[in-house]
Amino acid sequence: MIFYPGGEHLASWRLPGAQPERYLDVGYYRDFARTAERGGFATLFIADELYVWDRYRSGIDHVVNIRTEPFTLLGALSQVTEQIGLAATVSTTYNEPYHVARKLASLDFLSSGRAGWNVVTSASDEEAWNFGRDANLDHTVRYRRAQEFIDVVEGLWDSWDDDAFRYDKESGYFADASKLHRLDHRGEFFTVRGPLNIARPPQGRPVLFQAGASEAGRALAGATAEAVFTLDPGGHKAAQALYDDYKARARANGRDPDHLKVLPALSPIIGETTKQAEEYLDLVEELTPDRLSLDWLSHYLQFDVSSHPMDEVFQPDLSAPTNQVQSVHAQIKRLVGVGRFTLRQINRAMLRSRFLVGTPDTIADFIEKRFTGGAADGFMLAFSSIPVGVEQFVELVVPELKKRGVYTGEYRGTTHRENLGLPVPRSRYG
Amino acid sequence: MIFYPGGEHLASWRLPGAQPERYLDVGYYRDFARTAERGGFATLFIADELYVWDRYRSGIDHVVNIRTEPFTLLGALSQVTEQIGLAATVSTTYNEPYHVARKLASLDFLSSGRAGWNVVTSASDEEAWNFGRDANLDHTVRYRRAQEFIDVVEGLWDSWDDDAFRYDKESGYFADASKLHRLDHRGEFFTVRGPLNIARPPQGRPVLFQAGASEAGRALAGATAEAVFTLDPGGHKAAQALYDDYKARARANGRDPDHLKVLPALSPIIGETTKQAEEYLDLVEELTPDRLSLDWLSHYLQFDVSSHPMDEVFQPDLSAPTNQVQSVHAQIKRLVGVGRFTLRQINRAMLRSRFLVGTPDTIADFIEKRFTGGAADGFMLAFSSIPVGVEQFVELVVPELKKRGVYTGEYRGTTHRENLGLPVPRSRYG
Repeated sequence: MIFYPGGEHLASWRLPGAQPERYLDVGYYRDFARTAERGGFATLFIADELYVWDRYRSGIDHVVNIRTEPFTLLGALSQVTEQIGLAATVSTTYNEPYHVARKLASLDFLSSGRAGWNVVTSASDEEAWNFGRDANLDHTVRYRRAQEFIDVVEGLWDSWDDDAFRYDKESGYFADASKLHRLDHRGEFFTVRGPLNIARPPQGRPVLFQAGASEAGRALAGATAEAVFTLDPGGHKAAQALYDDYKARARANGRDPDHLKVLPALSPIIGETTKQAEEYLDLVEELTPDRLSLDWLSHYLQFDVSSHPMDEVFQPDLSAPTNQVQSVHAQIKRLVGVGRFTLRQINRAMLRSRFLVGTPDTIADFIEKRFTGGAADGFMLAFSSIPVGVEQFVELVVPELKKRGVYTGEYRGTTHRENLGLPVPRSRYG
Repeated sequence: MIFYPGGEHLASWRLPGAQPERYLDVGYYRDFARTAERGGFATLFIADELYVWDRYRSGIDHVVNIRTEPFTLLGALSQVTEQIGLAATVSTTYNEPYHVARKLASLDFLSSGRAGWNVVTSASDEEAWNFGRDANLDHTVRYRRAQEFIDVVEGLWDSWDDDAFRYDKESGYFADASKLHRLDHRGEFFTVRGPLNIARPPQGRPVLFQAGASEAGRALAGATAEAVFTLDPGGHKAAQALYDDYKARARANGRDPDHLKVLPALSPIIGETTKQAEEYLDLVEELTPDRLSLDWLSHYLQFDVSSHPMDEVFQPDLSAPTNQVQSVHAQIKRLVGVGRFTLRQINRAMLRSRFLVGTPDTIADFIEKRFTGGAADGFMLAFSSIPVGVEQFVELVVPELKKRGVYTGEYRGTTHRENLGLPVPRSRYG
């Protein structure tokens, strides 16, 4: 499961059952992580960004702009959860590989092999401004940097062979120097000598997630990712094609395609009846101030749309390439391209496209079809509502999936890799 | 208490009761942290460095070169300890203030007000090599950078006023935009716009520790630190003078000198009798390979002493300024200056000077004299042996100090600040 502190929508924090005053409280995360463990979820994933969205005043007034630094939080959660994998976003644009390799290896030890990381390249200038840059790096440069970053981190994790430590009090040998490797990396972006000051992680390497939908993002995923989050491209056939594309890219890189899991994002809104679920979606829409919807679109389009009336047809020229998140921009462009939608309708369509609205039965239908139909290896669940949505899914949908035999609801092993069906990578030094 | 994973000496991991195979296991830290809580200790401090000491082969063979990244570890410890403060080293030379402000604020929330940080400027070229630099920054440049770093981090912590969040589901107002402050910092080393994406920490600011002994280090401490670790300058009078110097510097900066706590490092070796304690010190010396002692000296002197026979007088010219840790270098220089010590004797003297060897009674005498005699506000205990030394201190010395009425052994409050007797800083915005 994937999440922002308050849930998958800007207005999630206003929903019934939401607990906004607990977003900096470890107990909030512990409670729904344990619910997720009851459902056998493989991964708890903490999405992260490195800025306050203050470009528009509505972003400060109405949006959850506070969150804990994810690795400190995951360190805490490692002690109050038992089985779920613990992963978080790492920006390769605004971090140093030595720090990242250390904290991921540390989390892997502290959690007994449950660590994971989601490599992102960061898309907002706001982040650049907090790290001494005037603007974000260009899209292609960011992806080149990400590739090198991953290579350095993986190299650092291999610094010590798995059997390098002797802990021999008698002879005085703590380690075997012949089993230590210095990286001596010199690349376009990083110069890192190594070695890393922590042993090779229990999983060999924490699980590597990615989400890039652009050509550069897919290429990176094909070369390095072990699981990729995708956004619904619209329809089962398109989802199959996207699935096949990632698998083909893994194969083209000489990898076993089964070692790149494709996990479409899925945001269920669950009702006892379809009508009840639809009413919940209406509520999400109602709880989103117009002004916030406009500013959110302005953010992704990189120009101010707020002077455009909500109920008139919206048809700007969006042909210029964007430096923003490619998948969201492409989705807006498709809707604008239809040529007859007002801003309110575009917003409504964006909202609807993000959520799967239905009963436990119809949601299980969707999951079963995608999973057995070659379009998904699993799903990244992004709940509109926390903790209510997590509880609903575990109580209502998981039993239905078990009944159909498409999901056991049980953990297959003890490590994050085992539970995702991924092998333990060998050290680059053999 | 202060510590390296294995204890305060290079050979600590070989001592009876040491548990080297647990140094990456959270249970190891949890167990002795709980012992420390039984003794009423204010702070658990994790010393940190960003490299493997592989300049000499003996450093790989015989030294503990692995450790967990401290903030991930402290995140974990926040859930398995109740009262002890949780602090760790932060290098201002190889970090970004935005990341550091976030993780310290996060730890402060996750631990309900128990976070602290020890600002260091990093002294080894090995660290520079892991972060894209050819050599460490110059000593004075490092301290200028540290000053600016602290200023930026403290400014970021004040981004949101204490009452900035409304969490008002009804009106849709999550926060009050008028209570958000943008830092817009532009300095010699950092350009950071802000604001920070987490609320002001429960303590206002996590407790700021420092340890610099050089003029630049003392100046920084006088201006910014709330607690300073000192090394014994040799004798009670010198300790008083050092104590007074820090207090005077705080006063000269317009600060209440009581808000800069002076905490001399204290490494007790405790025996039932003095003879037993002395034998333990002999054991520490015996367990240190000669070659490792030589390489350790070479490291701090920045030239190779290993060809010098252990049992001949050692008298090199040490007048050149050093880029290494000033306090250790000065101590070696004093011993060499005596002019009749062999390398073995210098090593022995260095070892002896680092430890206070005695019975619970004589150790309590020392503590009482320094504490009541205006030379210490408390002590940073650095145990030669973990967990044995921690247990001995809590079982044997703490009761003696309580009997004498110089230490209650009780926590004064619930936050790290309260337990150290430090006030909650006000926001720079009022």
